[in-house]
Amino acid sequence: MMRIPAFLFLLLILCVTNSFSQQRARDLGVKIGVLPTGAQNAITDVEGVKVGHTTLVAGNSVRTGVTAILPHPGNIFQQKVPAAVFVGNGFGKLAGSTQVQELGNLETPVILTNTLNVATAMEAVIEYSLGLPGNEEVYSVNAVVGETNDGYLNDIRGRHVQKKDVITAIQKAEGGPVAEGNVGAGTGTVAFGYKGGIGTSSRKLPENLGGYTIGVLVQTNFGGVLEIAGAPVGKELGKFSFSNELFNNADGSCMIVVATNAPLDSRNLERLAKRAFLGLAKTGGIVSNGSGDYVIAFSTAEGVRTPYKVDGKLLKQEVVPNDLMSPLFMAAIEATEEAILNSLFMAESTTGFKGRTIEALPMDKVLPILREYGVLE
Amino acid sequence: MMRIPAFLFLLLILCVTNSFSQQRARDLGVKIGVLPTGAQNAITDVEGVKVGHTTLVAGNSVRTGVTAILPHPGNIFQQKVPAAVFVGNGFGKLAGSTQVQELGNLETPVILTNTLNVATAMEAVIEYSLGLPGNEEVYSVNAVVGETNDGYLNDIRGRHVQKKDVITAIQKAEGGPVAEGNVGAGTGTVAFGYKGGIGTSSRKLPENLGGYTIGVLVQTNFGGVLEIAGAPVGKELGKFSFSNELFNNADGSCMIVVATNAPLDSRNLERLAKRAFLGLAKTGGIVSNGSGDYVIAFSTAEGVRTPYKVDGKLLKQEVVPNDLMSPLFMAAIEATEEAILNSLFMAESTTGFKGRTIEALPMDKVLPILREYGVLE
Amino acid sequence: MMRIPAFLFLLLILCVTNSFSQQRARDLGVKIGVLPTGAQNAITDVEGVKVGHTTLVAGNSVRTGVTAILPHPGNIFQQKVPAAVFVGNGFGKLAGSTQVQELGNLETPVILTNTLNVATAMEAVIEYSLGLPGNEEVYSVNAVVGETNDGYLNDIRGRHVQKKDVITAIQKAEGGPVAEGNVGAGTGTVAFGYKGGIGTSSRKLPENLGGYTIGVLVQTNFGGVLEIAGAPVGKELGKFSFSNELFNNADGSCMIVVATNAPLDSRNLERLAKRAFLGLAKTGGIVSNGSGDYVIAFSTAEGVRTPYKVDGKLLKQEVVPNDLMSPLFMAAIEATEEAILNSLFMAESTTGFKGRTIEALPMDKVLPILREYGVLE
Amino acid sequence: MMRIPAFLFLLLILCVTNSFSQQRARDLGVKIGVLPTGAQNAITDVEGVKVGHTTLVAGNSVRTGVTAILPHPGNIFQQKVPAAVFVGNGFGKLAGSTQVQELGNLETPVILTNTLNVATAMEAVIEYSLGLPGNEEVYSVNAVVGETNDGYLNDIRGRHVQKKDVITAIQKAEGGPVAEGNVGAGTGTVAFGYKGGIGTSSRKLPENLGGYTIGVLVQTNFGGVLEIAGAPVGKELGKFSFSNELFNNADGSCMIVVATNAPLDSRNLERLAKRAFLGLAKTGGIVSNGSGDYVIAFSTAEGVRTPYKVDGKLLKQEVVPNDLMSPLFMAAIEATEEAILNSLFMAESTTGFKGRTIEALPMDKVLPILREYGVLE
Repeated sequence: MMRIPAFLFLLLILCVTNSFSQQRARDLGVKIGVLPTGAQNAITDVEGVKVGHTTLVAGNSVRTGVTAILPHPGNIFQQKVPAAVFVGNGFGKLAGSTQVQELGNLETPVILTNTLNVATAMEAVIEYSLGLPGNEEVYSVNAVVGETNDGYLNDIRGRHVQKKDVITAIQKAEGGPVAEGNVGAGTGTVAFGYKGGIGTSSRKLPENLGGYTIGVLVQTNFGGVLEIAGAPVGKELGKFSFSNELFNNADGSCMIVVATNAPLDSRNLERLAKRAFLGLAKTGGIVSNGSGDYVIAFSTAEGVRTPYKVDGKLLKQEVVPNDLMSPLFMAAIEATEEAILNSLFMAESTTGFKGRTIEALPMDKVLPILREYGVLE
Repeated sequence: MMRIPAFLFLLLILCVTNSFSQQRARDLGVKIGVLPTGAQNAITDVEGVKVGHTTLVAGNSVRTGVTAILPHPGNIFQQKVPAAVFVGNGFGKLAGSTQVQELGNLETPVILTNTLNVATAMEAVIEYSLGLPGNEEVYSVNAVVGETNDGYLNDIRGRHVQKKDVITAIQKAEGGPVAEGNVGAGTGTVAFGYKGGIGTSSRKLPENLGGYTIGVLVQTNFGGVLEIAGAPVGKELGKFSFSNELFNNADGSCMIVVATNAPLDSRNLERLAKRAFLGLAKTGGIVSNGSGDYVIAFSTAEGVRTPYKVDGKLLKQEVVPNDLMSPLFMAAIEATEEAILNSLFMAESTTGFKGRTIEALPMDKVLPILREYGVLE
Repeated sequence: MMRIPAFLFLLLILCVTNSFSQQRARDLGVKIGVLPTGAQNAITDVEGVKVGHTTLVAGNSVRTGVTAILPHPGNIFQQKVPAAVFVGNGFGKLAGSTQVQELGNLETPVILTNTLNVATAMEAVIEYSLGLPGNEEVYSVNAVVGETNDGYLNDIRGRHVQKKDVITAIQKAEGGPVAEGNVGAGTGTVAFGYKGGIGTSSRKLPENLGGYTIGVLVQTNFGGVLEIAGAPVGKELGKFSFSNELFNNADGSCMIVVATNAPLDSRNLERLAKRAFLGLAKTGGIVSNGSGDYVIAFSTAEGVRTPYKVDGKLLKQEVVPNDLMSPLFMAAIEATEEAILNSLFMAESTTGFKGRTIEALPMDKVLPILREYGVLE
Repeated sequence: MMRIPAFLFLLLILCVTNSFSQQRARDLGVKIGVLPTGAQNAITDVEGVKVGHTTLVAGNSVRTGVTAILPHPGNIFQQKVPAAVFVGNGFGKLAGSTQVQELGNLETPVILTNTLNVATAMEAVIEYSLGLPGNEEVYSVNAVVGETNDGYLNDIRGRHVQKKDVITAIQKAEGGPVAEGNVGAGTGTVAFGYKGGIGTSSRKLPENLGGYTIGVLVQTNFGGVLEIAGAPVGKELGKFSFSNELFNNADGSCMIVVATNAPLDSRNLERLAKRAFLGLAKTGGIVSNGSGDYVIAFSTAEGVRTPYKVDGKLLKQEVVPNDLMSPLFMAAIEATEEAILNSLFMAESTTGFKGRTIEALPMDKVLPILREYGVLE
């Protein structure tokens, strides 16, 4: 029989503890809302949507990355998807918003990264798009790149994301389970004073309400007074916006990407995007002055795509009418709230730039609070 | 043993029932947020703001009314206040929004009433404004009138509000405590399947965060999945949007009026208005397709008013810079959430049009739920 | 030498003067743009569109009225048409704009009247809509009412438009030629210092550009530096904004209604509306601070209508894609420019409120200027 | 008597011819509007504004460049200027618009370049800003970069603009006369089927209208039916949008930068920006589907700047009230129209990518047309 040294035992325990802190909200018994999730409880439950991360952790000060969300597996420039942007608070550098709003569509993957690397990511998306087979005669690309500022944990002025990191995130993108927490564009972000990151969730409407799937992916880096399924966790922990000097400038941002297979036109996608903003509110976000909060929503339904070349023809579409939108709205709110919680639940304590440390959500304190407030089922 | 006559018993029971159902959320131990309220916990805590109601209850089918909010006691047309409108969901008939947005100011009281009487209220506001001393040469008045649809309990097609009812609400307006629940424009409204109405709340920022007061008044008539201080009351009661056939078209609306004595320009008032929308989300509102949800925000600070005649002069102003807005944002979210809850807590069961009845929030069931979820202090 | 009796001379002069002053721009040789007009060169060239005027001229001081534009001959509430609003300058009281923008449709006739009678017109449109067969269960009506301020020639504070005047305009509405100048909502308006009013024009695209018809109707009441087909008429006449004290406050407004049979969704209708604003610029309008300039655009194509009751079904549509919009844009610009000119060319000198007189465009001076600048063909 | 060799004679003639084709509109007798220009008739008439160009012409296919506009000579990040963006047509890649709209200010130079080099320019502006003395602790920069698509004459897919080209344009920026035509970001652009480029103009209001200066700089790359001071030049030359197959897709874009020393807040700057759009209309622009037309407006008045660190203080400002805006609106329209014409008048015929040639405006044909239409004074 093989003997295991004591220190390895400790390591094992640590790992277990760690994996404990890495359970998703729902796995710990936190149930958000009244609608069922999709199979993965992830944006990838919307068929065809793929997600890829490039996580950059190096030395003491690089804690950043890239997350790419692809609306469908084909050439997105040639088969544009209807899309919309809602600006919750425009203190941010989202690239590509005006064209999405004007033309009502998206022609590239959506890229998330850090504030000072938006240009790098645009450059990469342009190169990627120009280089796709079939795009040889393309002279204009509307790269959609969002960001949050990870400058507390990451040497953001070093602009460590490179074009290849963006291309890699696009190329590695896949369906199925989505890595959350300290990955991709969430590697160095901070939310509610704890380690934030990437989170995702989904909802599947009952057939009598349309049967559509809504998936949300977030990059959390914002503040407020944290609530988990309504429990006033931030208040109980005594850590929230303006609770003390340190927090007085706790700005940040939240990028929210909403995907659905419901055949929506851009007007109703904009309305859907606005509801995701409400999901953020339910986690206690206050959308502070310095928070760049944007929602990008798109539909993956094939019937509502716009080919690059329309050849003089009208677009034949079947779209969801206004009157049937409300269940989709409810789903977007729920999935956004849960995606934000997942970004926190899945993130790990991180030490980075200038030796600063941001702790993961302290589950040893949080779980009792959740229990006290009747949240855990 | 003393005998108590039967009718006194009944009276006692009524009073108990009544006072029970009419306590404000905070008086029952429901504390929203982390910031202190103003003295009245009402929009009138913002100095100079006055509120007046005309409540119309007649026969079996008139259950409607008017609520007037005056930003200051003077001639508002002659001393316009900076203002903004945020359209949460534009399925509504708010009058006056484009001029407020373009010019950044408000020149009349804000009137709330029912959907089909907006024109009546505009007419009244115009008459009122033209008739004020000093307005003899005024040829244009931008009446701001919001509404929600009380057509379930009220014979809305009868358009029972008359001009005089609007004038009365303006003239009766006063500072101090504000009547809530089934009053004024809230007489016949329904929220989350229960009787809604008028609600109000306020926040007073600590001096180091500016010391400003934010007051909110709401007219609630919308749906979703009710949450009270985070407790999933709607879910527990089994009564929420799409919980059954009956609720599938539970549309409605919410009008939110935000007042502050902080000297804000219209751009930052618009940002403030947007945050009030987040407060609505925290009560479980889903801003359904048919919900006309608008926020009107104004500043009462004298230094930022615009006189009707500027006489070729520049406007000298001291305004709050972007960087100091976040505490105001937090206050607006909290006060909106609490105002909505107050509208529900203070409303009483009502029978109206076609014999339909809407129950008040069933406190006998709600309080235990709140206790279970640790909400009651 | 033949002798002509004196009275014939006078008659001749009158006829010449009269017919002279009442010819449309194109009939006098002023050709705007490069695209052909429709048969009537009027908004009614868009099949199904009907226009009705109620002209109120009484005593010395009533010079106002109502113009109604009906998008189709059916029950508009039951068969809503896609629509959009563009706010050129929001110093105005357009009712109904937020719902049109949110839901992307129009459910009533468009009514134009004077600033202080918008509420009256709303009231009338609501009554009209509630009273239509099939609307017995309707509890919400989004009346779209635009206005300009005719208070220089009209006793606007008297609010002389009554509900019946609005109903009459709707009921009298018809296709075919449209009365222009001092009619309906244009009875008392002033443009560029001359008598303005109602004007209309249309364009019919060649088949290879879609073959669609675009019609525009305007209510002109604004200022600037008048240009007629590029000729600097205002400058030559020495009468333009800020040319002297009198003109320093020459505010006003312009309402523009754009109809098309092209099957457009609301997003592209909004873009179309924006182009109409450019047509206004070409007449020399400066969209001054006090000018409430709005464009309402709608599509009459049957395939893009939304029934009031959708019965859970998706909307099947064939819509014009972005790439085919440019010819429609060009047509909207041209038709708007020409409609504005028609409103001036067709208007007659008017004396009204307080004995004030506004002259019609002085054709005896204007025609020589147009000739000098090579405008007359 | 000195003898001049024959070849020098030829050179002289060439120079003269050349300089002839390079005269600004006003120098040739084309007078736009009724207001006087500033000293240079350039955006630099607004005190403190500086303009720099980097012109990239290499081999057969590089015809592009960069134009930088600096609102003031100091550290713009530390002394932000009030600013606004108006989106005429959002088919473009303007970076930084949402933050300008949200916060109402501009914190970097405005950069113009080609569509596929926006990211490069952002990168450069970020580096430039991070590197300025005093910005050592800056972690977020909102680079404002506009573009038009010069892909007809320039190998745009080659993305030939480099970061150093952007930095150079910023560093070379100066006051005084501004080079126009084929320079900077206008090197490879095309307008109305002729060579476009950079143009500028200004207006100086009379003292009784405020005495303010308005300057405009444009990058022209759009289509329509060219009008010069109202003369239908495009029509007469038979060259305009949809005049033949070749022109059916004559898209493009126009970037418009408006500067003023009037102390305006961002709301009134947005209104001013909207008027510049009207100036574009007067040159015959139709804002086609594919045209990315944006206006960026800012105020240089010191009293309305926002310091990066506000230190908890209110902003003291004196701003122009709504009522005094109209003369500024008129000035913005005139200066934009003239700036666009200058871009055409000053541009020279260019051969570039794939051997394609775009002719300068053919003055030998244009001047007779202008004479015929009475435009030349």
